[in-house]
Amino acid sequence: MAALKPSPFAPACFPDLPAVRGVKLAGGPARVRYAGRDDVMLAEIAAGASVAGVFTRSRTRAAPVLWCEARLAARRGGAVASGPLCFAANSGNANAFTGANGADDARRMAEAAGAAVGAPAASTFVASTGVIGEPLPVARIEAALGAIAETRAEGAWERAARAIMTTDTFPKAAGRTVALDGVEVRIAGFAKGSGMIAPDMATMLAFAFTDAAIAEPLLQRLLAESVDRSFNAITVDGDTSTSDTLLLAATGASGAAEIASDDDPRLPAFREALDAVLLDLAQLVVKDGEGASKFVAITVTGAETAQAARRIGLSIANSPLVKTALAGEDPNWGRIVMAVGKSGEAADRDRLEIRFGDILVAEKGWVAPAYREEDGAAYMKRAELEILVDVGVGAARATVWTCDLTHAYIDINADYRS
Amino acid sequence: MAALKPSPFAPACFPDLPAVRGVKLAGGPARVRYAGRDDVMLAEIAAGASVAGVFTRSRTRAAPVLWCEARLAARRGGAVASGPLCFAANSGNANAFTGANGADDARRMAEAAGAAVGAPAASTFVASTGVIGEPLPVARIEAALGAIAETRAEGAWERAARAIMTTDTFPKAAGRTVALDGVEVRIAGFAKGSGMIAPDMATMLAFAFTDAAIAEPLLQRLLAESVDRSFNAITVDGDTSTSDTLLLAATGASGAAEIASDDDPRLPAFREALDAVLLDLAQLVVKDGEGASKFVAITVTGAETAQAARRIGLSIANSPLVKTALAGEDPNWGRIVMAVGKSGEAADRDRLEIRFGDILVAEKGWVAPAYREEDGAAYMKRAELEILVDVGVGAARATVWTCDLTHAYIDINADYRS
Repeated sequence: MAALKPSPFAPACFPDLPAVRGVKLAGGPARVRYAGRDDVMLAEIAAGASVAGVFTRSRTRAAPVLWCEARLAARRGGAVASGPLCFAANSGNANAFTGANGADDARRMAEAAGAAVGAPAASTFVASTGVIGEPLPVARIEAALGAIAETRAEGAWERAARAIMTTDTFPKAAGRTVALDGVEVRIAGFAKGSGMIAPDMATMLAFAFTDAAIAEPLLQRLLAESVDRSFNAITVDGDTSTSDTLLLAATGASGAAEIASDDDPRLPAFREALDAVLLDLAQLVVKDGEGASKFVAITVTGAETAQAARRIGLSIANSPLVKTALAGEDPNWGRIVMAVGKSGEAADRDRLEIRFGDILVAEKGWVAPAYREEDGAAYMKRAELEILVDVGVGAARATVWTCDLTHAYIDINADYRS
Repeated sequence: MAALKPSPFAPACFPDLPAVRGVKLAGGPARVRYAGRDDVMLAEIAAGASVAGVFTRSRTRAAPVLWCEARLAARRGGAVASGPLCFAANSGNANAFTGANGADDARRMAEAAGAAVGAPAASTFVASTGVIGEPLPVARIEAALGAIAETRAEGAWERAARAIMTTDTFPKAAGRTVALDGVEVRIAGFAKGSGMIAPDMATMLAFAFTDAAIAEPLLQRLLAESVDRSFNAITVDGDTSTSDTLLLAATGASGAAEIASDDDPRLPAFREALDAVLLDLAQLVVKDGEGASKFVAITVTGAETAQAARRIGLSIANSPLVKTALAGEDPNWGRIVMAVGKSGEAADRDRLEIRFGDILVAEKGWVAPAYREEDGAAYMKRAELEILVDVGVGAARATVWTCDLTHAYIDINADYRS
């Protein structure tokens, strides 16, 4: 497959992120599928950290996802092993649809990665992304982990972020620093997105870390809620991988006292920073969407519930007719009406209002009297677009982010595997 | 916009269909949007006929859809006017998202079409397809209907089928003849599909007729059930228009005694013929799908319910990753696993079985030992493909039909409106 054209939304440089205290990162080569690149990421997380995870809702979840879900369930049941935690991930092979051997390979990878940093396997979380249906070359990963672990260091964000890339055209990372009662707390993470090397799937992996101390049940709740406002509000093509994984660890190494309850006055500031980090990562995934030439924020207001607003937004964002119109810079608001209608959520056809940025396109169920097609067409030439839709039945709102559907998407995904 | 390339699946000629007794058809020009083409279809249906309809489930249904739903509801309430029935449709303008005026225009079109064939407006059903958000030029339709009605004749299938085309690359019609207790009964109809002239939407319209006599409540049930096995089992891009309309009239002019109950021994033969006509029409719509280069039948077996099987099939059929792989002739079964998983329906990952035609690709949750990638690749070069997926949890099955996602789809839909 030919080299991918870099996304027009690639940041000028890798962000300058502070180290999260208590977290050591490494990336290195294990030749999982290709030589000459880092393809294993390893994170050692200080003993006593809490951990949370969210995963694909696919019914055909890959073996590493099932491994992680079982480890989290055991911790919730009280089985928290002593010693550090470990996150490990590889690119090049998803260990998905690999039958019963897949579970063995995920366990072996966890045992080896944990051993490399002194963590028990029960505290080690693994993720794999890449080709599916082929056995994971776990022996090569086991052989490489020792040398990779030796290079681990605080703040090695870029090496770690690069090791999990597949057809991402740039490494993705984000971070925030926030003062909680005068104690500086750091949150940072990295992700890989929907880039795809055939026959990979559009797997999303993200690993985030904070040196705040957060009780594990609360950390899980915070993560789930924040994901609804970030990773669950983005879409490239509406497909769901077998392997999507987002892990978050809280080390407490900042020295800030533990946050254990919803009433903690420090919680809103922490939540805001966590939201910002995850939203940055999620938006970077969309901006590197396969073939993306437009980055589009769709805000739905006037819905019955926030969930309905998000569903309407995703119906618009996932519509091939809307996405091809965006690629063609066509201000085709009729397709937005169609996508609102097909969402199945309540909407008042005769109160529907549509805006492109500040341009009022439609109101009261018809094109706005002052709307001029040439204004819409000029707006659509921008690289970053805002579509605002009021469905006129309630007060709830949501924003989702997506990209357009271009010839490059088909080139990337129709390419015969080689 | 450039002329559309004909579909590779276009039939060699328009089918030779028998007239349905009691139905007179016409097509003619009203200059709704373009000159030099027929754009109004008119059908006069003999007095005493029964009628049934199914419509888009969109929450932003167009005015003609609301008109038809109200007429059917009134009939169900007992308000059946005497005199003939009438179906009328125009291409070029969808009368959708046209505010309160849209309802007036639909009523005016019904009144004029009914008057042209001697049918009361309450027995006249209208449909419109084309540009949305622009007022229907109903005066031009009113002015043209008289001359169009004069040309109405039994068996004028092709003229009627052509009048409702938008970017369809060929007219679509199908029919069957069936003997019910020795009396020959005919069923035939025509449809327009998902071709689209920007800024149209992918509206599906279909009109079917039979000279059997079927009680109206039973006719509605038969139609709804048959649609689940035909039009509701096809997908081009998963989008849902504001205007999808399927109308079925039964004139009784064959002389066959009325079928009024589910126990009638003639019902299975009639149902089979109706299914065949609607499935032919639905498959023609897919074969003329925008940019289609592959016609794909996806059969899901081993599901918990038929509905679950269809949902899994549609999840595969609507997946952009699957559709682009098909366009690229890539036997990418991993994406089928992904699409099964994202359907949300029960599936046993470790019993999943996938076949391309007769080729066993995957079984027991892993690639089949005898499967050779080159066999799958050779199979994918065919124009008509069969994908069979057993999800291993039950005994229910369903088949859905779709096409691939090609560059031509994007060309057609990203084109700026002119």
